[in-house]
Amino acid sequence: MEKKMQELKTRYREIYDIHSALSVLSWDQNTYMPPAGTEARGRQMSTLGHIAHEKLTDPAVGQLLEDLSGYEKNIPYDSDEAGFLRVVRRQYVNAVRVPPDFIAAFYNHVAQTYQAWVEAREEDNFAKVEPYLEKTLEYSRQYASYFNGYEHIADPLIDRADYGMKASALKKLFVELRRQLVPLVEEVTSYPPTDNSCLLQHFPKEKQIEFGLKVIKKLGFDFERGRQDMAPHPFMTKFAHGDVRITTRINENQLGEALFSSIHETGHALYELGIDSHLEGTPLHDGTSAGVHESQSRLWENIVGRSYGFWTYFYPQLQEVFPSQLGNVTLDQFYRAINRVERSLIRTDADELTYNLHVIIRFDLELAMLEGKLAVKDLPEAWRSRYQSDIGIASPDDKNGVLQDIHWYMDYIGGMFQGYTLGNILSCQFYEAALKACPEIPVQITQGEFGTLHEWLKDNIYRHGSKFTAEEIIERATGSSLTIEPYMNYLRSKYGELYPGK
Amino acid sequence: MEKKMQELKTRYREIYDIHSALSVLSWDQNTYMPPAGTEARGRQMSTLGHIAHEKLTDPAVGQLLEDLSGYEKNIPYDSDEAGFLRVVRRQYVNAVRVPPDFIAAFYNHVAQTYQAWVEAREEDNFAKVEPYLEKTLEYSRQYASYFNGYEHIADPLIDRADYGMKASALKKLFVELRRQLVPLVEEVTSYPPTDNSCLLQHFPKEKQIEFGLKVIKKLGFDFERGRQDMAPHPFMTKFAHGDVRITTRINENQLGEALFSSIHETGHALYELGIDSHLEGTPLHDGTSAGVHESQSRLWENIVGRSYGFWTYFYPQLQEVFPSQLGNVTLDQFYRAINRVERSLIRTDADELTYNLHVIIRFDLELAMLEGKLAVKDLPEAWRSRYQSDIGIASPDDKNGVLQDIHWYMDYIGGMFQGYTLGNILSCQFYEAALKACPEIPVQITQGEFGTLHEWLKDNIYRHGSKFTAEEIIERATGSSLTIEPYMNYLRSKYGELYPGK
Repeated sequence: MEKKMQELKTRYREIYDIHSALSVLSWDQNTYMPPAGTEARGRQMSTLGHIAHEKLTDPAVGQLLEDLSGYEKNIPYDSDEAGFLRVVRRQYVNAVRVPPDFIAAFYNHVAQTYQAWVEAREEDNFAKVEPYLEKTLEYSRQYASYFNGYEHIADPLIDRADYGMKASALKKLFVELRRQLVPLVEEVTSYPPTDNSCLLQHFPKEKQIEFGLKVIKKLGFDFERGRQDMAPHPFMTKFAHGDVRITTRINENQLGEALFSSIHETGHALYELGIDSHLEGTPLHDGTSAGVHESQSRLWENIVGRSYGFWTYFYPQLQEVFPSQLGNVTLDQFYRAINRVERSLIRTDADELTYNLHVIIRFDLELAMLEGKLAVKDLPEAWRSRYQSDIGIASPDDKNGVLQDIHWYMDYIGGMFQGYTLGNILSCQFYEAALKACPEIPVQITQGEFGTLHEWLKDNIYRHGSKFTAEEIIERATGSSLTIEPYMNYLRSKYGELYPGK
Repeated sequence: MEKKMQELKTRYREIYDIHSALSVLSWDQNTYMPPAGTEARGRQMSTLGHIAHEKLTDPAVGQLLEDLSGYEKNIPYDSDEAGFLRVVRRQYVNAVRVPPDFIAAFYNHVAQTYQAWVEAREEDNFAKVEPYLEKTLEYSRQYASYFNGYEHIADPLIDRADYGMKASALKKLFVELRRQLVPLVEEVTSYPPTDNSCLLQHFPKEKQIEFGLKVIKKLGFDFERGRQDMAPHPFMTKFAHGDVRITTRINENQLGEALFSSIHETGHALYELGIDSHLEGTPLHDGTSAGVHESQSRLWENIVGRSYGFWTYFYPQLQEVFPSQLGNVTLDQFYRAINRVERSLIRTDADELTYNLHVIIRFDLELAMLEGKLAVKDLPEAWRSRYQSDIGIASPDDKNGVLQDIHWYMDYIGGMFQGYTLGNILSCQFYEAALKACPEIPVQITQGEFGTLHEWLKDNIYRHGSKFTAEEIIERATGSSLTIEPYMNYLRSKYGELYPGK
């Protein structure tokens, strides 16, 4: 058995290496690649992706998994080897169920859809991408059909990002969240809008970068094992245990954009950097789900990075960097500005309070389409109507409506959005558990010390990588299953202070 | 046959893509990779290298080549398809003759040798790397033995970089070159040393980069299809027809270093950028040999970049960028400074006139070791004695002697150096042919116009990629075989003007 285990590990390590190489190609494409490199890069990535897929679906892998299934039953569930076998099996089954021809045809379709979307958005012309989106919906249903026996047609699609989460449970969760959020947003937005003009001045690029690097270093980003570059869209990517990278972009006329996106991506990076090094080369050396991953970016960005305590420490330093812009702005004014709530059209610009409403709209519409209750041609109208009812504002055009997010135009319909809101919910559930264990964390944050929080997260979440499912990690780290209570408490308390009742 | 041709092309394209991916990984390693990424990067590259090797040596490739050999005889020699079949066959034969176990063992040995060399050089202790180098010599002989039937044991090693060149011909060529160069160097270095203090001032990094980019853009480097980054060692690399990159490094206390290395790498890049786009994905989309490649870097760096005409155009602009440093330095003083000749110990710092003597010493010592006429333990002494006799100066230590170049410590002994001198010789042979066809080139250079020269080179050399061997390219482009005459004429004329006889 040991020999078979070793063979499976060797085979998987090769797949892992190819995926790492793919990540380097993709990082380069998004950071430094010259314009004329696009076509060849696409081909290189598809070649490597194809090879990795071939290696994963090699019948020998299936045979090894079968041969090892007895062995697996006799080792402890929480051992690395058992985790390894569980996750490899899951990936193998997913990979062999979906025919390679389907995958090839779908990604060919996606490339065309993406092109159509770029034009449709530019021209504010949904009709241009509508036929493509209809086909995407068909492909998405077809994908689900390869996983016969599902409870809801969206489940196999949700599984891709948030393994084990079910549409039924998410629906219930999101209905309850929405029920509580809509009136809260209504209340807060009945106040006159917060003055955020202090953020809308000219902040030179180099100084923003320098300050951002100082902040994320303090949060624990290890520059021996990673780096930050500029990219049109911020993201985090990992090439190895010792090479985790983030990107950011600078808006010289808005201070918050670069700073909070840097902290957000640092949260993702701390997760990947914190996985046990001996899991490298296995599928366990990876965050366990989109939701848990997002919980870490949101925890560091919002709970930490938009807190009063955090800025008690950092604001004087920020003022030193931008004396003419912020010298006369008080900490209190600045804190209010970075936490301004407003009814807005664009998800990625949304504040903490309204953000989930944007997500839930998308999630519900995805499900409605998959269930056959909403036709693609009626999507723009459904979008508008939900924005009006949930957020109280609706876009007259589609480019700031249904065409704003890339997700449905570069992948399946289904399973694309739930991770964002799961992340917000979980960020508070995890943070509450951390505070219970280490009540000194908030005071430390006001002193610019993040080690205790970082260690707790590493110990309870990061180090395990994907050894446990999201459900298991939540249960182990917090002692309970997923719950919105800590999140709603956090929002009520934070915004209750900011808007202390009329 | 068409179907088989297509299959071979498809198979080769995959290999090409994997090699392109490998180049991206290597570029990243040398430019941006954080320190802790090293180990995993090595593994990723070895995984991809292994896959590419497997695909090239697949028996199906051999079968296709055999099936197509009749077809090949019936298509014109200078057709793309015939070129494709010739070069794929050459690569296939080389790959299958050398056992995979030998390759693996050798690269394992090389990794250790490299480590030992780093330490040996630091400590100036040749003994530390001596046993490794002895083993490298054995490996090099073993490698040659897989190509039984060679004329000289170095030929199979020379073939790796300069296909078709023979040790016997190179020996003859280099003996003659050395016979003419040694007295020329002696004469020139009998003059008092040229004052180059104008180059040894403080030149801020950003301004050096900016000026360098302006120059290489003017030379024809296409930034839509490439870019320049910083790296500890300048190099050129290609990921695709539309993605060719160079690197440079800045020495703030020496103006020439960054500038001439940028122009040098631009020469390499112009070659790769000039290959016909429809050859992409085949082994023809690559420079034809180390010698011809180096001829392009040296042509642009030396014949163009160190010429009086070139600086007639650029020097006023350089003075504008560095007014306090160069405002009082005349064009003539500057021209003399960048062409200063001196007896020196380090190859990479050597001027145009002495450079080949450094190379010929290494070439001769390689051959002597392979022939069994020189033992590794006697190498440092042999090095010193040749430096004394050829260049008139010898290093008392080994770190500025036999330990200075990385080549023998990261690859085979044999075939490592001839390309540099072939490049110098060819740069003049090609340039002379270009002038014959377009006598207006020198005047255009004084006007900052490089298009005519660039077009001639593209038309006669670049566009063919590897379709023709070096020998064929030389014959086609210049109407004669390799000859040192144009090179010696160039050196005599240039240095005759700079040092006009006592």
